[in-house]
Amino acid sequence: MAEIPYKIYLEESEMPKAWYNVRADMKTKPAPLLNPGNGQPLKAEEMGGIFCEELVKQELDNDDAWIEIPEEIRDFYKMYRPSPLVRAYCLEKKLDTPAKIYYKFEGNNTSGSHKLNSAIAQAYYAKKQGLKGVTTETGAGQWGTALAMACSYFELDCKVFMVKVSYEQKPFRREVMRTYGASVTPSPSDTTKIGRKILAEHPGTGGSLGCAISEAVETAVSNPGYRYVLGSVLNQVLLHQSVIGLETKIALDKYNIKPDMIIGCAGGGSNLGGLISPFMGEKLRGESNPRIIAVEPASCPSFTRGKFAYDFCDTGRVCPLAKMYTLGSDFIPAPNHAGGLRYHGMSSILSQLYHDGYMEAVSVPQTRVFDAAEQFARVEGILPAPESSHAIRVAIDEALKCKETGEAKTIVFGLTGTGYFDMVAYERYHEGKMDDYIPTDAELEKYFAKLPKVE
Amino acid sequence: MAEIPYKIYLEESEMPKAWYNVRADMKTKPAPLLNPGNGQPLKAEEMGGIFCEELVKQELDNDDAWIEIPEEIRDFYKMYRPSPLVRAYCLEKKLDTPAKIYYKFEGNNTSGSHKLNSAIAQAYYAKKQGLKGVTTETGAGQWGTALAMACSYFELDCKVFMVKVSYEQKPFRREVMRTYGASVTPSPSDTTKIGRKILAEHPGTGGSLGCAISEAVETAVSNPGYRYVLGSVLNQVLLHQSVIGLETKIALDKYNIKPDMIIGCAGGGSNLGGLISPFMGEKLRGESNPRIIAVEPASCPSFTRGKFAYDFCDTGRVCPLAKMYTLGSDFIPAPNHAGGLRYHGMSSILSQLYHDGYMEAVSVPQTRVFDAAEQFARVEGILPAPESSHAIRVAIDEALKCKETGEAKTIVFGLTGTGYFDMVAYERYHEGKMDDYIPTDAELEKYFAKLPKVE
Repeated sequence: MAEIPYKIYLEESEMPKAWYNVRADMKTKPAPLLNPGNGQPLKAEEMGGIFCEELVKQELDNDDAWIEIPEEIRDFYKMYRPSPLVRAYCLEKKLDTPAKIYYKFEGNNTSGSHKLNSAIAQAYYAKKQGLKGVTTETGAGQWGTALAMACSYFELDCKVFMVKVSYEQKPFRREVMRTYGASVTPSPSDTTKIGRKILAEHPGTGGSLGCAISEAVETAVSNPGYRYVLGSVLNQVLLHQSVIGLETKIALDKYNIKPDMIIGCAGGGSNLGGLISPFMGEKLRGESNPRIIAVEPASCPSFTRGKFAYDFCDTGRVCPLAKMYTLGSDFIPAPNHAGGLRYHGMSSILSQLYHDGYMEAVSVPQTRVFDAAEQFARVEGILPAPESSHAIRVAIDEALKCKETGEAKTIVFGLTGTGYFDMVAYERYHEGKMDDYIPTDAELEKYFAKLPKVE
Repeated sequence: MAEIPYKIYLEESEMPKAWYNVRADMKTKPAPLLNPGNGQPLKAEEMGGIFCEELVKQELDNDDAWIEIPEEIRDFYKMYRPSPLVRAYCLEKKLDTPAKIYYKFEGNNTSGSHKLNSAIAQAYYAKKQGLKGVTTETGAGQWGTALAMACSYFELDCKVFMVKVSYEQKPFRREVMRTYGASVTPSPSDTTKIGRKILAEHPGTGGSLGCAISEAVETAVSNPGYRYVLGSVLNQVLLHQSVIGLETKIALDKYNIKPDMIIGCAGGGSNLGGLISPFMGEKLRGESNPRIIAVEPASCPSFTRGKFAYDFCDTGRVCPLAKMYTLGSDFIPAPNHAGGLRYHGMSSILSQLYHDGYMEAVSVPQTRVFDAAEQFARVEGILPAPESSHAIRVAIDEALKCKETGEAKTIVFGLTGTGYFDMVAYERYHEGKMDDYIPTDAELEKYFAKLPKVE
């Protein structure tokens, strides 16, 4: 067998030509989205006013295991993919562990994360449908940047509602979006009814993701030729993100490597769901049995401390109900610097798989995450995003367990992106100003009590 | 012949095992550095107090064409190299040009540029010599970041003097260096004699690269176990950077591609010198004859409007004299956002080659550079550094000439890095606040009059 290189790149000809839809192999399918008005499963025609037609089909498709990636999207993928599967030789040496550590690195593009994989797909289908543009919300900014890039490529208009406090604290992210021609509006804004209402009720508010979602949806629905798009949680997003896992599996197979565990950070589930999909498929079909571990912040522990129940996807309660592990749609996580993981809920697909025992979850406090981030940066040469560093933390912990037991396990984790726009968080960490707040049981119970009563 | 992929990655086994020293093929060697005290060529023993021994040898070696890359450095290179040679299919399509455009992208590492190629070599030789640490200066911050990463890897102490105005305007760059364990001191500082002198004479000054160099050299010389390192201009740096050109050539040769022109931005010459080296070697040996084009900012036009003369490498006049194209060591470029190109002089090797007619040079105004940067970002998915965008500008101009003439020329340019820490410049550009100041002839004459009198 050939020696494993530091970085495994696929040839263009080896890149996936179809996305993998893990729902096809699930015995218990994820529960459908419900119309919040009547509590009935959402129909395609109800979703069509908000989402593009083709994306609605993908959202509802529980049966087709493989969905062809259109050539235009594959061409765009070739611009920044395949992403490398990296053997972390330097980290292994530093940890003095017999474990073999690999990471799939999605940060080598200007959005700085895996978000571009779905953004380009959603922009493509919008363009194909003849739309003028799309709207979305962004918090930390990775998703907004990815969508701005995708829309620029297909010459679509892109309207981003950026949580006001992020808009002000992260002017550079905003500027990158503007470079790609997107309009970026701090939310709440006076450009929408819901925005004006919130501004009147809470003058001077810094906004929230929930509010930004509501403004983006209102703008899409009230502008002919526009649709709303979302960067995580949805089934369609996990479908597009399967390209991460498919490339990872092809690379591992080339060298006959069998992972013992696969680790990914989890906010809404886009990265984790994509990374694990083909491995989960094997597991569901009984062909292999690696451990699959979701890592979430202790400050926002949907899997590890949430309820598996129907809940609103947004704080403003305008979006459909999804069955998922949730902390309650009113839950506001303590300020923590992994903006991409501060979501109260979790993908319905992953929630069902976790509920059915196909995966584990663990939560980690923030300072331990930054310890791992810095350790990783120093030996592997990549400054990781705070989100990604959750996966690094647990990968290191598992590698250290191997050191104790002497087992040479194969660990694969997802490195979703870079932290170049997160230096304020690193600064707080360096200056000892980072806290590790964890919600109490009593606090969580308060939110659980407000979960909608469904069935 | 195989179709050309979007990105050509070498296999690890194809990566260069030796650096190429273009001086070996130069009929007229670059003029030696002179001791500013006595005007005599600097001897190895005089340089040894400031630079590492092995690096002094490399600096003075005009004869050996190939210098082996130590295995430890090659291992580090494998962490972030090979860098991709990208076929700019999307840009070609957008420009509707018959030209074939390729770029060698050096930005896929946390320093964000090619600077890491030499930083790791310099850190390695410092470690091998048993030193405790190194000192350096940084302006825009790419070099300081690269050196911090390299020192962290070899567990060397790293003291960076960062121009005060940059230190304050670019806190994120500073924070990345701290993540890698470097100490970052705003210059001028009260930690050195020269710093205290300058502070007393100019209270409240924002500092300059010249002053930061002087502080870094003083600190190296006055701390046992420390040496000073520099990220550009020097022969040793161009030697290490030859890895860029060597990889580029191997990738082109694999697909039997013959470049008609090679374009690179030029500040002190580290990227350009590295990129062109093997192609220049062929040209010097009469084996091929591509055009080689240096691109510099119109605000700091060393090649296109400077004098070929001996001059000080630093504003403080503490460093040796080098024969180079220079605007005078007192020349202060107008504020322009390509911090890495704001150097009054130019590598002696490149200066000699330009003087001997082996390469061309062109200068471009800043707003045209940002026009090109934005156009490139939108179709190629990479937000380029302002420095790199100088090369993009001229590559686009040449591709548009091909459109006029119908010639399908092959253009190769160096994309040295990403602009993630340069969003203030992009913001100014978006808001129409960017100027295109160009020095007048009278201004330049004033600086030329102060050039040292060396025969």
